[in-house]
Amino acid sequence: MLDLAVPILNAPMGGVAGGELAAAVTRAGGLGMIGMGSSATVFTLHKELPHVRGVRFGIGLIGWRVREDPALLDAALDARPALLSVSFGDDYAWVVAAHDAGVLTATQVADVEQAGQAADAGVDVLVARGAEGGGHGRPRMSLHTLLRQIIAHVDRPVLAAGGIASAHALNDVLAAGAAGAWIGTAFAVCRESLLDDAARARLIAAQAADTILTRAFDRAFGYAWPTDTPERVLRNSFTDRYDTREDEIDATARDALRTATESDDYRIAPINAGEGVGDVTGVDDAEAVIRRLTTT
Amino acid sequence: MLDLAVPILNAPMGGVAGGELAAAVTRAGGLGMIGMGSSATVFTLHKELPHVRGVRFGIGLIGWRVREDPALLDAALDARPALLSVSFGDDYAWVVAAHDAGVLTATQVADVEQAGQAADAGVDVLVARGAEGGGHGRPRMSLHTLLRQIIAHVDRPVLAAGGIASAHALNDVLAAGAAGAWIGTAFAVCRESLLDDAARARLIAAQAADTILTRAFDRAFGYAWPTDTPERVLRNSFTDRYDTREDEIDATARDALRTATESDDYRIAPINAGEGVGDVTGVDDAEAVIRRLTTT
Repeated sequence: MLDLAVPILNAPMGGVAGGELAAAVTRAGGLGMIGMGSSATVFTLHKELPHVRGVRFGIGLIGWRVREDPALLDAALDARPALLSVSFGDDYAWVVAAHDAGVLTATQVADVEQAGQAADAGVDVLVARGAEGGGHGRPRMSLHTLLRQIIAHVDRPVLAAGGIASAHALNDVLAAGAAGAWIGTAFAVCRESLLDDAARARLIAAQAADTILTRAFDRAFGYAWPTDTPERVLRNSFTDRYDTREDEIDATARDALRTATESDDYRIAPINAGEGVGDVTGVDDAEAVIRRLTTT
Repeated sequence: MLDLAVPILNAPMGGVAGGELAAAVTRAGGLGMIGMGSSATVFTLHKELPHVRGVRFGIGLIGWRVREDPALLDAALDARPALLSVSFGDDYAWVVAAHDAGVLTATQVADVEQAGQAADAGVDVLVARGAEGGGHGRPRMSLHTLLRQIIAHVDRPVLAAGGIASAHALNDVLAAGAAGAWIGTAFAVCRESLLDDAARARLIAAQAADTILTRAFDRAFGYAWPTDTPERVLRNSFTDRYDTREDEIDATARDALRTATESDDYRIAPINAGEGVGDVTGVDDAEAVIRRLTTT
């Protein structure tokens, strides 16, 4: 349906997957996605669009941000993406709007019930997102369990997401019946991502067991993520102190987090990372990452 | 190394995998394991041994129970099992004792560091236990992530554990390089298990998303499980009330749990279940389960 030379999309990581990364992924044969995250605005979207002029691209939005700022959806459709993904919301009105604009639709699903609802709402492509994944998601079950259930019960092409950062892992999900993979962490360290070097270095040094599911940062930032949707990040001194003790986050902690985020101090500020982070061992351009992922 | 007709061992589920289940699994071509859990004693082990007279079997012990009651290890070795598994402990002295008795050894591992330590200690077979698994385990990462890392870095045969309850899931782990599978939930509902009918019925009705990782029951029972080792169980009114609020478990709650456990009231009492529980749809004998798992 997406008609790709290589069955890979980069996950639309907010603040990380900008237009430059999206263009590079598409040029290497996949489909590049621009990610609009917790603090996305029409302005931040417009800033990324010049990079994808003349190449196919997709856009990924967050349901609760669209509810807060409906102009984001209009701006995304006006950009005429090949694929629009809206995740983390129960309202599927955006699917109709996308189809009216001739745009294919995708959404992340965490269990087979949600996959069925999305399919019933007309979503074209399902992103089966296992608990391994970096960033936000409902950690209902692991990728392979989820993938098997959705493929058995829902009649839609399924992209596998969560922990895929090696050719071996990609092979495993394709063998299990996925139509392709939705890959975050491996592209987050790419030269073309919006991430800074300090965050890249931490991702490169980290292993799967260095990641943790937490709501601490969302609570501290005051983001409207649902309580059943934590994010997987690299453990750091902030999670050591506040994870599962979010009620103790006070004004001092919030100030320290804000300062750390502004100064790229990742002893305190968050870095999203999936369980595939151990397979990420150096900075490369997106084309080299795709070559590594597709060479066994 | 284990020389099995079918690459399947039942997980040594305490209070569930007795001698009758172990004998049935071995007779069907796998290796049956007797499970000695949190409340195991030499007496409860001796009660199960008559069922495996004349058939190959293994025994699974818990490290911290052996530390509390070292006679368990002696009794297990005296029974001359084909395989002894001791999990959840840092002390590997039991490996030497087992080898002196001519017994092969296995242990559950949750990350590649632990796999390396076990291999260095001479453990013969590693059980790569993903966070999907039912019952107790350190939920460090999902099975396929773990399996890939251990196979790449540790030179030992690896059994895959966690969420495997279908032929498709078994195929996936064998394709990923596992030497076999260590399967719990699918055998828990078998006619030959020690589980009662009320628990079987709940397992048959449940889906992966009905499971939850919790320490609530261990805190209530006062078991010596390490804090990094929760158990995956079916959600019920006890976990709804006390999971992540374990400090609120008082004498009344403990009494109610004890009463419920004695009367098989699973609205309150725990039932271990892995993410494969959705693939478990009826009561069968172990031979039929193995046939289902090996027929694609």
